[in-house]
Amino acid sequence: MGEERITIGVVAPGSRIEPAVAEKVRALATALYVGRAPEIRFHPQCFRSSGHFAGDDATRAQAFLEVANDADVDALWFARGGYGSCRIAERVLPALDAAARRKVYLGYSDAGALLAGLYKAGFAALAHGPMPSDINRSGGDAAVRRALAFLIDHASDTLEPTVTPATPTAAFNITVLSNLIGTPLEPDLAGHVLMLEEVGEQMYRIDRSMFHLTSNPAIRRVAGIRLGRCSNILPNEPAFGESEEQVVRHWCDVSGIPYLGRADIGHDIDNKIVPFGRWRSPLSRTAGEGGASEARAG
Amino acid sequence: MGEERITIGVVAPGSRIEPAVAEKVRALATALYVGRAPEIRFHPQCFRSSGHFAGDDATRAQAFLEVANDADVDALWFARGGYGSCRIAERVLPALDAAARRKVYLGYSDAGALLAGLYKAGFAALAHGPMPSDINRSGGDAAVRRALAFLIDHASDTLEPTVTPATPTAAFNITVLSNLIGTPLEPDLAGHVLMLEEVGEQMYRIDRSMFHLTSNPAIRRVAGIRLGRCSNILPNEPAFGESEEQVVRHWCDVSGIPYLGRADIGHDIDNKIVPFGRWRSPLSRTAGEGGASEARAG
Repeated sequence: MGEERITIGVVAPGSRIEPAVAEKVRALATALYVGRAPEIRFHPQCFRSSGHFAGDDATRAQAFLEVANDADVDALWFARGGYGSCRIAERVLPALDAAARRKVYLGYSDAGALLAGLYKAGFAALAHGPMPSDINRSGGDAAVRRALAFLIDHASDTLEPTVTPATPTAAFNITVLSNLIGTPLEPDLAGHVLMLEEVGEQMYRIDRSMFHLTSNPAIRRVAGIRLGRCSNILPNEPAFGESEEQVVRHWCDVSGIPYLGRADIGHDIDNKIVPFGRWRSPLSRTAGEGGASEARAG
Repeated sequence: MGEERITIGVVAPGSRIEPAVAEKVRALATALYVGRAPEIRFHPQCFRSSGHFAGDDATRAQAFLEVANDADVDALWFARGGYGSCRIAERVLPALDAAARRKVYLGYSDAGALLAGLYKAGFAALAHGPMPSDINRSGGDAAVRRALAFLIDHASDTLEPTVTPATPTAAFNITVLSNLIGTPLEPDLAGHVLMLEEVGEQMYRIDRSMFHLTSNPAIRRVAGIRLGRCSNILPNEPAFGESEEQVVRHWCDVSGIPYLGRADIGHDIDNKIVPFGRWRSPLSRTAGEGGASEARAG
């Protein structure tokens, strides 16, 4: 806070980014914050390439641990989604230390697999929100500016507007959360407002994933579901005949989960920030395991 | 068996079929079996249309129950996959009676959601194999001929070649089974050889689904995994860098599940039949709940 310069470490547990992303994000941070601009350390792993991934599993896991366990780094920022976080979770989670527990973590989409595992492990300062790769969107500066305001000042005006200190929240990509159900990464979301968003899926897949999520007994204990934006919905053959909100309302009705309306999140520049657990400002990075149980008390 | 004419009821819990499919399947059955050709009753629901589905949920559920609970029908044959079985499972399963328990059920792909629920409910004569809609494939007569030989004569030469009476088996589409994990439809596959196939997915999705399946503690109790064909794999951006067999071997290695090699199943005309549970010939349709526990004893 204040005039303190924070250090942000960036890693890419899923897909890679181009070096130009790092340059643009650093330039924006300098322009916005001048003398108190954060030091943003893009781990070289972000630019590596191994098939689908930003380096192989061992490389990505090692980079994540180097940044997470570095006591000089205040926040770990996921560079991008894509796919790959779930592949390194089993290597990473048991090797995180006390310095890792004191950090803020910010990302979304594929990063949800690690955010889920970190939340389950009791990490206190996790959030769903924009990533460096969002700078490539048209108007993407707005998303990155919001992420920086959250990471640097824990600014409340960066939050999804329905977030309150009264109720714990969590946010996920629908397909990513679906693929965590029944795995060791599945977090306990009892009593949480669960915000969901989607991108690039046919409506029948969204419907099937909502069947999957809302049929799960643990997910049925959430306080309610809010639907973020479902963008770039792919053509359904034949036309599905229902909107994404109708689909989500249907499964909320079937499962008895309260449908609470829309959430201001999605794969876009307006993607607001959703803390995991109960919002506390300034966001405590020292709560550790005790903070987690506080954050989760529904 | 013998000169007895069986009655096969066809319903479509997911996507619809054209009436021409019914005509072609009936003509093929008559040509093959002449005087002992089965009576194949396509429920009119198969040709209905409601958005993505062969009629709305209530229509599809009612048709399924009419056929399943009809004591004059020997076998229930799923008309087609597509998507929709999971949406009617909760209505259908509690309403099935003793006549339903005595039937043979045959289908695959989306039908796996109901086959899973039926298996969990102790139904004794369930199998993964070709459906009437397969007649539309080039050379599709072969697939339908195989299905008829299974339904009429329980012919052992229709089976996937590694199926033996010694070990219980089950087969699923990877994505369909992934979407059942942690739901009331998830079957207990402990001790089973689990055969998996896929169609029309990018490799990163296959990888993510295999993470999901093999991370699940219940799935880790299978006797092993056999990989069927993964057809029409969609382009991965960037190239994934591993074949489907490498992906499945990877997740078997990580999870400690034995990888047993390939299975002769898939979304194609060579799709062999895989019984759920232990193979018994002739396939008993009277085992009921007792038969299920026998079939499942790993």
